[in-house]
Amino acid sequence: MTKNTKVNAAILIIGNEILSGRTQDTNTGTIALWLNSIGIKVNEVRVIPDIEDTIIDTVNNLRKVSKYVFTTGGIGPTHDDITAQSISKAFNLEYEIHVEAFKILEAYYKVGEFNEGRQKMAWMPRNAHLILNPTSGAPGFNIENVFCLPGVPSILKSMLGGLQNKIVGGKPILSHTISLRTVESEIAKSLSDVQDNNKDLEIGSYPFFQAGKLGVSIVIRSEEQSKINKCSKQILDFIDEKKIEVVER
Amino acid sequence: MTKNTKVNAAILIIGNEILSGRTQDTNTGTIALWLNSIGIKVNEVRVIPDIEDTIIDTVNNLRKVSKYVFTTGGIGPTHDDITAQSISKAFNLEYEIHVEAFKILEAYYKVGEFNEGRQKMAWMPRNAHLILNPTSGAPGFNIENVFCLPGVPSILKSMLGGLQNKIVGGKPILSHTISLRTVESEIAKSLSDVQDNNKDLEIGSYPFFQAGKLGVSIVIRSEEQSKINKCSKQILDFIDEKKIEVVER
Repeated sequence: MTKNTKVNAAILIIGNEILSGRTQDTNTGTIALWLNSIGIKVNEVRVIPDIEDTIIDTVNNLRKVSKYVFTTGGIGPTHDDITAQSISKAFNLEYEIHVEAFKILEAYYKVGEFNEGRQKMAWMPRNAHLILNPTSGAPGFNIENVFCLPGVPSILKSMLGGLQNKIVGGKPILSHTISLRTVESEIAKSLSDVQDNNKDLEIGSYPFFQAGKLGVSIVIRSEEQSKINKCSKQILDFIDEKKIEVVER
Repeated sequence: MTKNTKVNAAILIIGNEILSGRTQDTNTGTIALWLNSIGIKVNEVRVIPDIEDTIIDTVNNLRKVSKYVFTTGGIGPTHDDITAQSISKAFNLEYEIHVEAFKILEAYYKVGEFNEGRQKMAWMPRNAHLILNPTSGAPGFNIENVFCLPGVPSILKSMLGGLQNKIVGGKPILSHTISLRTVESEIAKSLSDVQDNNKDLEIGSYPFFQAGKLGVSIVIRSEEQSKINKCSKQILDFIDEKKIEVVER
């Protein structure tokens, strides 16, 4: 195993609105795809409510077992935005006005519009490092390996680019998908044999339903293209033998 | 606090495809909305990979702290479907052919089509209780308070109805949404005061962007309609005062 090839991360979605089913989380996918592209694998996602003790406990648990932790949600101006104060407590740091964040927000809003609610967004754990927000001003922040991002998907997306130089990834995780006009049970045995022959690869099998027809996508994931190619060849061999059609998806 | 008013649940999404960002989980929302309607609140969601030890540890942790646990994914015919065997180990139960599930599957498939892959779906923890599947035959199951459902959203959805008589909920969790043409910082202080006056209600504030305009949805959640009404009145009062427009969403 080469250095940095097993860099992992956890994602912590903070928000009652996800737990109630009112809002569909899409930030997990956004963060995970971006992390994969810089060689970081997501090992765990948790969704928790806006409850201080729960946030503190979960952050303190995840930051010990994961190289990086990304939180989303709870850094806005309203009473239910308690991520920054909870992270301060998790790290035993003062929760205070961050001078640089305050200046950024002051410059962002028109004179007279930088009200109390907006000023709240400058409160952070002492010595937090800012994560700049090109969309709506209010920065995110990180303390050690915990990166706190907003919950609004479009804003979160625009902030990921600015994180690149704060994070050390591994080899990008590559994947190859083979989609088939078949059902899982037809290929289960052969696919299991291929997995046994390629123990260090991740092979997933995912049924789909498209244009009125059933199909299965086989997804091979590895950091090494040559291993993916070898495994892919073995899959195509048994597919040929079984006369199963490969389809576009 | 009346009996059964605080019934909680955890959702455990099992699947590498969600962690990699390849597939967008929608089962959380489906399960959460259904649980709310029968008076059960989701306290936690976890997404974990198809790794046996992780599944065992997480299930054993969640089933102790939550009244109900719902797992999704990993009960199909392929090698990466390891939920049933992992649950067996979590409960120290034999992993074996479930006679009733075998009969259901045998009857579902045409003669000669009930192959090894499909037979795998009859393997379950000993004495599992079946959860019937009106869509595609293969049943889910529960052991004690852990309910194992498939990952395919349409199939999962069709199986929830059959769970109703196995689950004892509390009072349905009611919610009321007030959507406003404003930004969060304009209402943050007043909303925080309302929350302070209504400590046993959950008040959430969620910014939105619709038809080119910013807005905020305020969501009030409680088991008691009268409390929601009282709180809603207080919010409408300060909105009137601030001359903020209420909008449809």
